[in-house]
Amino acid sequence: MFTGLSAFPLTPLANDAVDESAFAGLIRRLAAAQVDSITALGSTGSYAYLSTEERRRVAHLAVEHAGDVPVFVGIGALRTSQVLTHLEHAQQAGAAAVLLAPMSYQPLTDDDVVGLFDTVTAHSSVPVIVYDNPGTTHVTFSTELYGRIGQLTGIASLKIPGVPADPQQARARVREIRAVVPAHVSIGISGDATAAAGLSAGCDAWYSVLAGTLPDPALRIARAALAGRAEEAVAASDRLAPLWELFGEFGSLRVVAAVAEQLDLVPRACLPLPLQGLDEGQRDRVARVVDDLGLDDQP
Amino acid sequence: MFTGLSAFPLTPLANDAVDESAFAGLIRRLAAAQVDSITALGSTGSYAYLSTEERRRVAHLAVEHAGDVPVFVGIGALRTSQVLTHLEHAQQAGAAAVLLAPMSYQPLTDDDVVGLFDTVTAHSSVPVIVYDNPGTTHVTFSTELYGRIGQLTGIASLKIPGVPADPQQARARVREIRAVVPAHVSIGISGDATAAAGLSAGCDAWYSVLAGTLPDPALRIARAALAGRAEEAVAASDRLAPLWELFGEFGSLRVVAAVAEQLDLVPRACLPLPLQGLDEGQRDRVARVVDDLGLDDQP
Repeated sequence: MFTGLSAFPLTPLANDAVDESAFAGLIRRLAAAQVDSITALGSTGSYAYLSTEERRRVAHLAVEHAGDVPVFVGIGALRTSQVLTHLEHAQQAGAAAVLLAPMSYQPLTDDDVVGLFDTVTAHSSVPVIVYDNPGTTHVTFSTELYGRIGQLTGIASLKIPGVPADPQQARARVREIRAVVPAHVSIGISGDATAAAGLSAGCDAWYSVLAGTLPDPALRIARAALAGRAEEAVAASDRLAPLWELFGEFGSLRVVAAVAEQLDLVPRACLPLPLQGLDEGQRDRVARVVDDLGLDDQP
Repeated sequence: MFTGLSAFPLTPLANDAVDESAFAGLIRRLAAAQVDSITALGSTGSYAYLSTEERRRVAHLAVEHAGDVPVFVGIGALRTSQVLTHLEHAQQAGAAAVLLAPMSYQPLTDDDVVGLFDTVTAHSSVPVIVYDNPGTTHVTFSTELYGRIGQLTGIASLKIPGVPADPQQARARVREIRAVVPAHVSIGISGDATAAAGLSAGCDAWYSVLAGTLPDPALRIARAALAGRAEEAVAASDRLAPLWELFGEFGSLRVVAAVAEQLDLVPRACLPLPLQGLDEGQRDRVARVVDDLGLDDQP
């Protein structure tokens, strides 16, 4: 279950409330595209900004509309007891697994992070995915820390940030991580621009921002890479270079939000304030890239 | 009101609930010490980890037990609408002002930050203190950003991180900030180790972690510096160098929590998990410094 393409949908807001109808539509779109799993309430799903009740409701909606596609649910929060509440709600909603990023306000020590995962795995009746997202959590996972957490009973997968673009270095990095975690723990790449490289270097899964809004181009990359057609995967990824550049410049969330708004999948200004989304000039650039790459020809 | 020493108390927890009796005791202790203001629910007060209801209750307790000392209340949150809820509750509690740090999960643009402060000042009936705390918020305030936010009606003070230790460089930095904000906006130093330097360089206030737990040594530094006795202030601060070293090594929050626990002001393990606090060996070092400096002779 922790292999292949996991799509991270937005949780669109309208007037500071979750647009449940638009969210359900995103989930049905992903199920129709036959992604391998859906991760609701990832960073792209703005989990950190939503109330406990909003998150409970979103978890239920995701499972309700995903059909046969397994749904993973993000349960991160700043306080351990809040994480356990989200865990309970995700389980009640029918999540196949939960995704946990160690959010921080005060800097966390490695012992704090291990303690958090230890508590959560001890309470969880579903598998736990470790979410290493240093750009938002400001927690740096060393390889040793992967090893300490990977040993915990109930850990199913590691979501790692990008790998080096060079294939040999990428393989070395994946091998290095593989060496410190049990064999049943899958390794999933994030950082969409390096996904083709990561999958070709031995990652089992791709935890994808892009796929949450545009599943088809992401599936083309994932299917090729996981079938061993590395060149085809890299070529399909390189074709999206103008999109990756926008991700790098504005952050992937603001770009996919603009794309989803442009394609009328979500309402305008769908991000939680204070996140203002892209301005008009930036949206024009995104629209041109979507147009040039034919990304609006999606089913 | 936005001058002198503002003390930042802990919000102690016991079994994952606010220890209201211990918190009230901290506030009464600060009022008795005659600090110039008390800032409840600062970073030292773990505001980011507490529920809306816990924060509402803590704001009320602070005002109830502070006597004549003005109470400022931290209202930061990741989502603007949550900030406005905290603002409303702080006002209802009788806060003399509110303190707002631009918390982030997704990186914020300058426009996002200005938009947040613009919304909050427009809704607030009390003055707003800008809380620049890059180590926790991961927002970097440029001098230009101070200027944009300082112009907003309702901004009363800037809480800035440390200044350079060199007196001339410190004065130049304070002058640089002063030049971009209106004259009625006070400038308060944080980063306790540089407070003597900051106050002597022209800062009006000291927003102090130390003072929340040990008000008297902080008052000695503040009173000397603000009376123009810079050498005396720096000497009083230098005397605490072993404490500043511990702040640098473990973060000020974990150190003052250990001090407060040692002095029986708060229960053991008073920080919100996943923050584990200091281990036994680290606590021994803190205890030795407290003992060597005579900090347990506090009234």
